Amino acid sequence: MTYTIGLDYGSLSCRGILVSTTHGMILAEDEFVYPHAVIDHELPDDTPLPPQWALQDPDDFRQALYHIIPNLLRISQVQPSQVIAIGIDSTASTVIPVTEGLVPLCEQPSFRNRPHAWPKMWKHHAAATEAAEITAVAIAQKLPVVRKSGGAIGCESLMPKVLQIFHEDSEVFANTVSFFELCDWIVSLLTKHEVRSTPLLTCKSLWTPQDGYPKGQPFDAITSKLAFHDGVHPIIAAPGAFVGTLHPSMAQSLGLSEKTIVTAGQMDGYAALSGVGISDEGTLMMMIGTSTADMVLGREWKDIPGICAAMEDANLPNFTNYAAGQACVGDMFKWFIDNCVPENYAQEARRRGISIHAYLSELAAVYSPGDTGLIALDWWNGNKSCINDMRLSGLIVGMTLATRPEHIYRALIEATAFGARKIIDNFNQHGLPVHDIVACGGISLKNPFLMQIYADVLGMEIKTTACTQTAALGAAIFAAAADSRRSGHHDVFSAIRAMGAKATVSYKPVIENTRKYHDIYRQFMTLHDFFGITCNNTMHFLGDCHK
Amino acid sequence: MTYTIGLDYGSLSCRGILVSTTHGMILAEDEFVYPHAVIDHELPDDTPLPPQWALQDPDDFRQALYHIIPNLLRISQVQPSQVIAIGIDSTASTVIPVTEGLVPLCEQPSFRNRPHAWPKMWKHHAAATEAAEITAVAIAQKLPVVRKSGGAIGCESLMPKVLQIFHEDSEVFANTVSFFELCDWIVSLLTKHEVRSTPLLTCKSLWTPQDGYPKGQPFDAITSKLAFHDGVHPIIAAPGAFVGTLHPSMAQSLGLSEKTIVTAGQMDGYAALSGVGISDEGTLMMMIGTSTADMVLGREWKDIPGICAAMEDANLPNFTNYAAGQACVGDMFKWFIDNCVPENYAQEARRRGISIHAYLSELAAVYSPGDTGLIALDWWNGNKSCINDMRLSGLIVGMTLATRPEHIYRALIEATAFGARKIIDNFNQHGLPVHDIVACGGISLKNPFLMQIYADVLGMEIKTTACTQTAALGAAIFAAAADSRRSGHHDVFSAIRAMGAKATVSYKPVIENTRKYHDIYRQFMTLHDFFGITCNNTMHFLGDCHK
Repeated sequence: MTYTIGLDYGSLSCRGILVSTTHGMILAEDEFVYPHAVIDHELPDDTPLPPQWALQDPDDFRQALYHIIPNLLRISQVQPSQVIAIGIDSTASTVIPVTEGLVPLCEQPSFRNRPHAWPKMWKHHAAATEAAEITAVAIAQKLPVVRKSGGAIGCESLMPKVLQIFHEDSEVFANTVSFFELCDWIVSLLTKHEVRSTPLLTCKSLWTPQDGYPKGQPFDAITSKLAFHDGVHPIIAAPGAFVGTLHPSMAQSLGLSEKTIVTAGQMDGYAALSGVGISDEGTLMMMIGTSTADMVLGREWKDIPGICAAMEDANLPNFTNYAAGQACVGDMFKWFIDNCVPENYAQEARRRGISIHAYLSELAAVYSPGDTGLIALDWWNGNKSCINDMRLSGLIVGMTLATRPEHIYRALIEATAFGARKIIDNFNQHGLPVHDIVACGGISLKNPFLMQIYADVLGMEIKTTACTQTAALGAAIFAAAADSRRSGHHDVFSAIRAMGAKATVSYKPVIENTRKYHDIYRQFMTLHDFFGITCNNTMHFLGDCHK
Repeated sequence: MTYTIGLDYGSLSCRGILVSTTHGMILAEDEFVYPHAVIDHELPDDTPLPPQWALQDPDDFRQALYHIIPNLLRISQVQPSQVIAIGIDSTASTVIPVTEGLVPLCEQPSFRNRPHAWPKMWKHHAAATEAAEITAVAIAQKLPVVRKSGGAIGCESLMPKVLQIFHEDSEVFANTVSFFELCDWIVSLLTKHEVRSTPLLTCKSLWTPQDGYPKGQPFDAITSKLAFHDGVHPIIAAPGAFVGTLHPSMAQSLGLSEKTIVTAGQMDGYAALSGVGISDEGTLMMMIGTSTADMVLGREWKDIPGICAAMEDANLPNFTNYAAGQACVGDMFKWFIDNCVPENYAQEARRRGISIHAYLSELAAVYSPGDTGLIALDWWNGNKSCINDMRLSGLIVGMTLATRPEHIYRALIEATAFGARKIIDNFNQHGLPVHDIVACGGISLKNPFLMQIYADVLGMEIKTTACTQTAALGAAIFAAAADSRRSGHHDVFSAIRAMGAKATVSYKPVIENTRKYHDIYRQFMTLHDFFGITCNNTMHFLGDCHK
């Protein structure tokens, strides 16, 4: 029996699992909650941050290794020698400025109070201007990556974040030896080899296997800090590819064997696609959490407008990985709970010992489609797909004096379902038919009320998996594929089929609801096109006003 | 010294004042809160009411007389013989089905459980279908009243309410001898003369001095219950006109002289116009309460689109009275407080011993125009002016995860200010320039934060009066004009100039804010025109869906 470890670096915690390479059974699971969480108001020393910033503490990422891996060994009682490989996935782009010896710049005392020296989290949205600049140059250079990235380079990707530092803090920029994606940094820490994972390079850094990074400004400034480290070429590797074995010092600290293989990192959503067992086209993965990531494989490259990325070989060899997404799902429901639920609702939920989410869901569940008289646009955090405009914002229409909090709550859930339908319609309309849906992510497990609305709006059955760690499982699957001799899987496809999570609960659409939602969706699309396309200057104007 | 009494029948209470006819000084003031308030869920015997219904108990109106008038005499210590006249104003159309002897039908035991037998309050909105039917026929007949009523007969006016009864409860209709407007009913009770006030006839019942009521169906059915009572023609009289003296039995019950004159009733907003001292063109009255009534006089009739009414001689002889309005102002803020303010805000307001309104205003006041990044359309209760479509509904756009309750609260206030600007722009653009603004109504006195936003949005100084009873004062002024010999006022204009309320506080616009709001108003108008005109089917669709 052999085992692999998958580590999934999320937004607020890192989750680790230890799994059997035979059938993917999870023998141990652990979580390390980042002590510093998201740093979005001020640095630990109280240095204030501007709006739309989101930083993290790199030591939280490092400490996760030392907490989780020994725990997994202890819980599972597996021998270190049986752990043949480790795979890593993370949010992206979470970008770490690093000096000599892979040390984060913000850990140098002289840079401790410099916001730009800290890792910029994926949801740091303050580099929108830089994203626009990079997009403009990339379009002028006719780089195919623009088309493959949904028509624009998003501000969540690496290059705009690095360019923002170049623009705003030249000293931090000059003192950074290299900017790392989070999962690459972890793999590099484990092996002491500087590594760059190909999906991150192609999806987040405009790199191609043929041409490398784009040339000219502002690219040359950015890539001067990406490609080389003390003149040493980094290892460029695909997920599931061997990067190296654990550095002896790390093996000792973590209690693992020096022979343990470390494989190249992957973005969390992409890892989850493998974790839920998808190894061919036709099945959409919908990962529903604070935001939603949608992903589907295709055997050939198709030009699909409005999606986030369509990258060849970004997850599995010889498949294009199509990624779309909704920028704000669970985050929006949380916003609603925090800002819009009256005192008597909070009291009633407490009295009954249930969460406010559960209480609102119960109240909202008695209605049929349309009953609330409300429609919302779920753009509290911008629109990722299919408009790809992060400056868009939220909308609710239809309020009367009879509107109640549960009506709005239901309308927000429906809005995210309509956004999901738009994404699937878009795939279908552009030659990438979606036949099946597998949902994963926290909300898919915890909110059956939402899942039924999704099934009704989409008019499709949605399968869910009870596995709560699909991304970590994907990372563990990639790790297993790196050692075919000991894992028994001759390639990653075989590993996915054997180890991927199995569907458990399924939600079937109610025909009558689907029919009603079809009409409401048409109204949703009227609003979607008006505010997102025809008259997008209203939301842009408001975004520019907002302080 | 002579005095008059003004009685103002509002939505939740009746207010009475006793004033000096010399300078309008208020010597005594009293309020009678209706024990049954608004009956909008079920009748007193638990008979349930459909949505959008709003009824009242007629005995509440009657009891107000017996409580208030003796109190006014007691407080003021004025001799009954010195009270020369009584004037009445009320909400409109609040419609009372009456049988023999002016007895409300709902007071007959056999009709006690019949919703249609009860007075329908002005804000009873369940007769929208009937309003559309009446509008269609009126347009087909080319009745000038349609143009004078803003292009449509509103569901708040008398005829749709009566037609709803005709359609839905033929027994109630058959057993009703006459349908009365509230103020006409009170005047009739006081004098035992059946009276119809001309402004109510022209503004709410499609009557004209030249042609009387319109003919044909559905008008004939409706007017069969309006014009005659036991074959006796009612008295038709303008506000300030002598109807009769107090019936001896009423004089005795109320403690007044039998010589006390009773003048014809008026609608509350129109009475307030005189109460705030407006007797010529150029000055807009803005009465800001649960809803807002805007009114301005003109020396000639102009065809102004989108207003609620433009009726000749509706308040003062030889002046056209132009009325516009916003259907939902204070009501919308109350909705927000009741439905959208989180527990910690309620707790903090309590801790500090201030109202949630005051707490939110304080938080919202630190922002400059635009800072919230939000725009709202204030149509929670439909749009009265300048679209005149009660099926429209509310909208908020611009939400992000950083949006806080105080941002939304401020945006709702700003929305009502933009709605007010649209109304004033509309007057200006159609030949009725507004040079001055006098605000009255509860909100104008209690909410300086809102008033400053209005001044900034409008770019105009707004005067307010400390008089809290402008409508009752207007009724008392009309009463004074009915007895020129004893009051010393040769006509109503002279009475208004002498007795009208004086401006106290004034709000001046801050130029910089006005400039910013000008840009935001353009965005507001984009939304206004899209949802109200170009694409009004979205809100109509949602209204039809809503259950």
